[in-house]
Amino acid sequence: MAHPLGIIGVATMGRSLALNFRDHGIDVALFDVDASLTAAFTAEHPGFADSVADSLTDLLTRLARPRRLLLMIKAGQPVEDVLAVLEGQLEPGDIVIDGGNTLFHETRRRAAALRATGIEYVGLGVSGGEAGARFGPSMMAGAPQSAWAHLEPLLTPIAAQTAHGACAARMGDDGAGHFVKMVHNGIEYGDMQCIAEAYDVLSRGMGLPADAIAGHFRQWNDGPLGSYLTDLTATVLARQEDDGTATVDTIFDSAGQKGTGRWTIIAALELGVSVPTIAAAVDARVLSSQHAARQQLARPPVSDVDLPSSALGDALLASRICAYAQGLQLIAAGNAEYGWDIPLARPPRVWTGGCIIRAKLLDEIISALRENPHEPNLLAHDAFSATVDACEAGLRQTVRAATERSIPTPALSASLAWIDMYRSARMPQNLTQAQRDAFGAHTYHRLDDPDGPAVHTDWFPA
Amino acid sequence: MAHPLGIIGVATMGRSLALNFRDHGIDVALFDVDASLTAAFTAEHPGFADSVADSLTDLLTRLARPRRLLLMIKAGQPVEDVLAVLEGQLEPGDIVIDGGNTLFHETRRRAAALRATGIEYVGLGVSGGEAGARFGPSMMAGAPQSAWAHLEPLLTPIAAQTAHGACAARMGDDGAGHFVKMVHNGIEYGDMQCIAEAYDVLSRGMGLPADAIAGHFRQWNDGPLGSYLTDLTATVLARQEDDGTATVDTIFDSAGQKGTGRWTIIAALELGVSVPTIAAAVDARVLSSQHAARQQLARPPVSDVDLPSSALGDALLASRICAYAQGLQLIAAGNAEYGWDIPLARPPRVWTGGCIIRAKLLDEIISALRENPHEPNLLAHDAFSATVDACEAGLRQTVRAATERSIPTPALSASLAWIDMYRSARMPQNLTQAQRDAFGAHTYHRLDDPDGPAVHTDWFPA
Repeated sequence: MAHPLGIIGVATMGRSLALNFRDHGIDVALFDVDASLTAAFTAEHPGFADSVADSLTDLLTRLARPRRLLLMIKAGQPVEDVLAVLEGQLEPGDIVIDGGNTLFHETRRRAAALRATGIEYVGLGVSGGEAGARFGPSMMAGAPQSAWAHLEPLLTPIAAQTAHGACAARMGDDGAGHFVKMVHNGIEYGDMQCIAEAYDVLSRGMGLPADAIAGHFRQWNDGPLGSYLTDLTATVLARQEDDGTATVDTIFDSAGQKGTGRWTIIAALELGVSVPTIAAAVDARVLSSQHAARQQLARPPVSDVDLPSSALGDALLASRICAYAQGLQLIAAGNAEYGWDIPLARPPRVWTGGCIIRAKLLDEIISALRENPHEPNLLAHDAFSATVDACEAGLRQTVRAATERSIPTPALSASLAWIDMYRSARMPQNLTQAQRDAFGAHTYHRLDDPDGPAVHTDWFPA
Repeated sequence: MAHPLGIIGVATMGRSLALNFRDHGIDVALFDVDASLTAAFTAEHPGFADSVADSLTDLLTRLARPRRLLLMIKAGQPVEDVLAVLEGQLEPGDIVIDGGNTLFHETRRRAAALRATGIEYVGLGVSGGEAGARFGPSMMAGAPQSAWAHLEPLLTPIAAQTAHGACAARMGDDGAGHFVKMVHNGIEYGDMQCIAEAYDVLSRGMGLPADAIAGHFRQWNDGPLGSYLTDLTATVLARQEDDGTATVDTIFDSAGQKGTGRWTIIAALELGVSVPTIAAAVDARVLSSQHAARQQLARPPVSDVDLPSSALGDALLASRICAYAQGLQLIAAGNAEYGWDIPLARPPRVWTGGCIIRAKLLDEIISALRENPHEPNLLAHDAFSATVDACEAGLRQTVRAATERSIPTPALSASLAWIDMYRSARMPQNLTQAQRDAFGAHTYHRLDDPDGPAVHTDWFPA
């Protein structure tokens, strides 16, 4: 019997998806250039022995038409290599799906290159890591409608299932799926950094031990901050070594940053969107990695920050809203720039399960975006405006207390500044425009005639 | 007599440089594809009539060997077009100089492509706008040593001259000049944003009229904040319309951001450098341009910020140091990544005159970097560590006062967080690493063995 899907690449993610498909009665064929990987897999799971192809050509002969090929291989040259081999052997209507962590620009380029051949190219963002792939990932597809019709019956069953349905959906054409996955990761960066800052305030700033801080996160997890990451933070902070030391206290405080967080910020710069909560997260990872410089420049730590935990919780909630809002604005800008039509409520819907940023907050975001589907800025939605109002004092108090006592809170501070800028009828960029006109004759618009002609002033009359 | 240099492109910048060369006895030949531009120029300056070529081929015949061609045309396709025409007509040893606003990656690509031909390619950053070009720009060259030997005698006389010498120098090979010019513009963005925030605190936050604020900047300009931009700000704020309204108050508060500021941040992301003071400036311009959204979301303005002007001045000085320090770190990272060897004191030296970021502070930066030429982080230099110490209370007080009263100070806040992170022996990224290991098995290093093997922990024991 012909297989409905072939998976190319059976490393951790590919094999986990294969098992997930099998659990749902979907009998996939497999191929890997490294035959030892398929051998190891079939040794552990003999039921797959007859489903392993010994070449890409062999794999193709095993598939039902249209052939559906899911690439679970490293982004970059490996994808190019496989596509080069496949191109001569595929037929119009066949569907190639890149399930890797590919930059959306690449996916757009490949989809465009294949368009004339009739081969359908899909960029599929898969979130949730190994456990997600095995038991229910969140999947964001960039696919032509015609290709999606052939994929939906396969992907829906294996996705995470929540009250909002299956966490697998078509976002839009070509790079839309990888784009939304990138934004997901950017939001993840931002949320993790806000959590790290709250931890820092409680730990360095207030001198609390890790298990006490775990208690705060446990409590927050029962309220509107409830989320996978809030819960995970509590679990992680509570873990102790055999000698009773908190495990988190044994870890070198240096985090890497090369990846999708950085991509998100570059995309935001390309699209003219401000994502400062996310950008602060990347910056903090950069500074964390300059460990030697920090030891050299270090000042005595403080431990007398005075702040109620409720203020800190409010700060976390407000800044989490900022991270989501910035991500949604980026998706809206992607729609405009790349000709997509991603319904704004759809990414939050597929993020409700299987992925790192699943959170209670998403229910409210989905409701708001269904009610007002063309407003990506959550601050402009009544529900979130009210929540931010309720949290504002706590966020302000947190930033103030941390600022006073030298505890850096770049993401919380940037979130507050972002809110305050949006709530400023006037900003000081009139001065910026005056300066630019004075030193570079860049001209400016008049406040009483913003759509009128650009004006140049002689700022240095004789 | 053969001309020592040909200028291709006689729009504003090209013609200004031509006049500047003439003032210094350097007789340049000119060409523009738009003959009306050369006609208009020679009508105004008849002395150039015999120096105008009617084709690129004609221009080449007029030049001494090695032929030196300075392109003063729009970056991008126009440069490609001219290079395509020139390539067949140039000889080994000829020197092509791109004096436009080109992204350094492009310059590197073109230099590499021409290397095999023996044609020398130079990327020249020219700062100072029309007035600079006419009377003394700051020029940053990316050039082979051999090409620079032929350019130095031409560029040194026309550059701005300061106590530090002529503001024209070779930075390094290929894209080094355009890179340094980009960083210059990034610092400019950062410094302008910090000034805008100080203005906002004084204006919206404290209710001062523009002419009173001009007085503050005038006073600051007499101290360590003395700079072209501080001085310009005072001049701009003091200007009044005929009816006595401050001109700055008539200007629409929306500034554009597509350009070199954005490039600087992307380069910083590519190189793993944190430039939050500069990034905040780009963000603020983005938010300023969302004028309609801001009117919709606006909250009542405040005018009761309580802050001594000395605190604000200290905040400005500390954050200006941050902007320069971030830029210098970016240059050091560029050296490492692109194989340049830009002496760190050299960019600040050519920035002392002719460009937008010329400032008193540069004298101290040059001294520090000559004493310790391998430390780009100004915070690690005793002189700047002491200055930041002296300014720290004022910066902290400013951020606190603005934060309390909803005046956004994203660049000042980001600067303070950047300082506080560098001065933190411990950062909370141990938690980040724990989270990443818990959800993605990313592993981590132990604090007591940071160079030892990566560790994975089972965070969810049964």
